[in-house]
Amino acid sequence: MRDTDRSFIAGFLDADGSIYVRLKPNSDYRYDFQIVPVIVFFQKKEKVLILEHIKDLLNVGYLRFRRDGIVEYTIGDHKGLRKIINVVLKYAVLKKEQLILMEAILSYKGSVKTANDFLILAKMIDKFEDLNYSKKRSVKSQQVKSRLIDKGLL
Amino acid sequence: MRDTDRSFIAGFLDADGSIYVRLKPNSDYRYDFQIVPVIVFFQKKEKVLILEHIKDLLNVGYLRFRRDGIVEYTIGDHKGLRKIINVVLKYAVLKKEQLILMEAILSYKGSVKTANDFLILAKMIDKFEDLNYSKKRSVKSQQVKSRLIDKGLL
Repeated sequence: MRDTDRSFIAGFLDADGSIYVRLKPNSDYRYDFQIVPVIVFFQKKEKVLILEHIKDLLNVGYLRFRRDGIVEYTIGDHKGLRKIINVVLKYAVLKKEQLILMEAILSYKGSVKTANDFLILAKMIDKFEDLNYSKKRSVKSQQVKSRLIDKGLL
Repeated sequence: MRDTDRSFIAGFLDADGSIYVRLKPNSDYRYDFQIVPVIVFFQKKEKVLILEHIKDLLNVGYLRFRRDGIVEYTIGDHKGLRKIINVVLKYAVLKKEQLILMEAILSYKGSVKTANDFLILAKMIDKFEDLNYSKKRSVKSQQVKSRLIDKGLL
């Protein structure tokens, strides 16, 4: 990919993209939480062209047309996330820290072996709340910790 | 400026910028309307860093902190507008047509000599309504035409 395509996507992401990791309660998972990392772009449906353009450049993720007229371009699989991080990291300004944190979480996630490892992962995810200026500032790792203690794993 | 800075700004503009020309009723002006071309970026105040970064790269325009927590980065002078158009035109995808139209309007504006010329300029400005998917779709050139007829200039 050309450097100018990479920096174009970085600029678009800085303006309009969201980078975060959800911790979803889900008892199908070993520690009762599912880790859902995502990079997503939102645009009005009239501007879907630009999302298609970026999707064509990256060749990852998928578009979803919501009923309210918003189109989401979502990248949620690890391979796709690593690709977009690799593409834009050099050029992102505002979201560089989120990209580095996301990369660290993807790497660490693969090495989680114990409940304590999982709690560290949850604490890494908490950091997104600060970086994304989240108003809720929910401390998800506290919920994870409580759950792991309830299960007798901590 | 580096090509990657140019394409970064183009990506940011495509995601988050607005390009339009206002036709403001103002009897101080010869044809009773003021032409106000503008390129503007909006971000939450927490993200002012990215607007400052782009302003430093372009060295045009100014920031305005609104009371509702939004920061506007506005470029409204002709020299500044020509500069940003020149910087991003090659790399813009979604807003390329608006940039070309803005450039045409800035050029044509300097050559307006008659009421009829001014009406043509107003019709060029109408085109932004289509390009920007404006919901109001106000036909400003009709108002200009009525006014010019009232003044006995058409």
